[in-house]
Amino acid sequence: MSTGHQLPPGTGDGDAAASSRPPAPEPTHAERARTLVAGANRGVLSTVALDPAGYPFGSVATYAIDDAGRPIVFVSTMAEHTRNAAADPRASLIVTEAFPEGSDPLAAGRVTLIGDLLEVGGDDRPAVRGRYLAANPASAYYIDFGDFSFWRLELRSVRYVGGYGRMSWVEAADYAVAEADPLAGEPAIGILDHMNADHGDSLVVMARVLGGRADATEAAMTAVDRYGFDLVVGGPSGRAALRLGFDAPVAMPAAVRPAMIRLVERARREA
Amino acid sequence: MSTGHQLPPGTGDGDAAASSRPPAPEPTHAERARTLVAGANRGVLSTVALDPAGYPFGSVATYAIDDAGRPIVFVSTMAEHTRNAAADPRASLIVTEAFPEGSDPLAAGRVTLIGDLLEVGGDDRPAVRGRYLAANPASAYYIDFGDFSFWRLELRSVRYVGGYGRMSWVEAADYAVAEADPLAGEPAIGILDHMNADHGDSLVVMARVLGGRADATEAAMTAVDRYGFDLVVGGPSGRAALRLGFDAPVAMPAAVRPAMIRLVERARREA
Repeated sequence: MSTGHQLPPGTGDGDAAASSRPPAPEPTHAERARTLVAGANRGVLSTVALDPAGYPFGSVATYAIDDAGRPIVFVSTMAEHTRNAAADPRASLIVTEAFPEGSDPLAAGRVTLIGDLLEVGGDDRPAVRGRYLAANPASAYYIDFGDFSFWRLELRSVRYVGGYGRMSWVEAADYAVAEADPLAGEPAIGILDHMNADHGDSLVVMARVLGGRADATEAAMTAVDRYGFDLVVGGPSGRAALRLGFDAPVAMPAAVRPAMIRLVERARREA
Repeated sequence: MSTGHQLPPGTGDGDAAASSRPPAPEPTHAERARTLVAGANRGVLSTVALDPAGYPFGSVATYAIDDAGRPIVFVSTMAEHTRNAAADPRASLIVTEAFPEGSDPLAAGRVTLIGDLLEVGGDDRPAVRGRYLAANPASAYYIDFGDFSFWRLELRSVRYVGGYGRMSWVEAADYAVAEADPLAGEPAIGILDHMNADHGDSLVVMARVLGGRADATEAAMTAVDRYGFDLVVGGPSGRAALRLGFDAPVAMPAAVRPAMIRLVERARREA
């Protein structure tokens, strides 16, 4: 784990102080940003327009990321954004989390990566070509066209918005070394489905004993990451969100099951 | 109809000249852009960042449009894009057409509206409030918060991209008077479903007689708008796209049925 976990500002568990439980660990905003960007392959690129001069110009772009999380786009030399970037490299790429049709788009996560968009030189081309092609299989039809080129966004700063009131500026250096969550995407969906379908009783016991919700009668898992998981817990005192942490970060999906069993067994012993 | 239909550059039916049929009428790019923007309520706003100064900054915004198609956004005074626009009004809003998950995002339509983002004054507030609320029901919870304000994008130019190789700059004045297609959205989906499910034989006859595809053995409708519809036609000579026009533009969904019957009857008479 190249970056330790920290509590992002303003996301502490308000209940923790009252019950003297330590706050459950959670991903940093740098890690959440990196996870979101790594989990998608398209966004909106903003460049500085040549005409009308100086206006910020939004366009659709598909991308891959390199080891430092920098986006690599593959663009036609005739496209507006390419001509804009050739004249002025200042740019940003915003990537938004997928959300169900009809839900509030402002509640979904998004990341704006800000920096300088520079053409990738010939020596780097084979490496970025492989990455881009892997992330965008549809590009196989034109990836070797002569009038397309690769450009890399050299990052200056990163804006993370996790939804209403959960946002911060992230240092580009922190984003560069942050690791995407190993459970993001399909593994997390599978874990949530399995826990909610087959282990509701275990979730309630954990909420009661480990989460300080002694009155819990129902609990549903709403998110999971390497550091722990989020529950919505219901009982006579009402419904509230609750976060519980694993004893140690899990490095891969297969490590979730033993980590979860350890928590459940401890909760049952102490119940 | 305030704007006549024209063939956008580069979208002519290559087959028309050969068969001396007149090209089928189709929406202008101004009309396509207006239809796309009217059919959505969220996009990515690009503003000029205060920090890092001068960089184009992409953010998520929800919007409504006014009678001239200008987007009205409702934003927190503390948000980055609001502080950016207060210092420098230059902005753009990009709206993308919905497309199925997993399909190529570069094949979907998008419109970039470019202009100056200016705060809406007190007198205009009630009118824009109603429009915004109608387009964004979720905003009812905070629409009367004091630290949010309405901003309108005064347009300078419009970039329309309909997919690969189908794009143009649209004059802001043409976009301002263009009408959104009356069939867009649910009506068009219903028409396509109905025609493909129940009237495949009529589509083939129209393709043969009105479309000059004498060898047609199958035809499927892929799009419909006030001026006509698109078919994919198959037969011994291969599969190809074909566009057929209504005799006159249809003003509302209920007018499609008689317009279609007229075409089918003529095709059957001339078959």
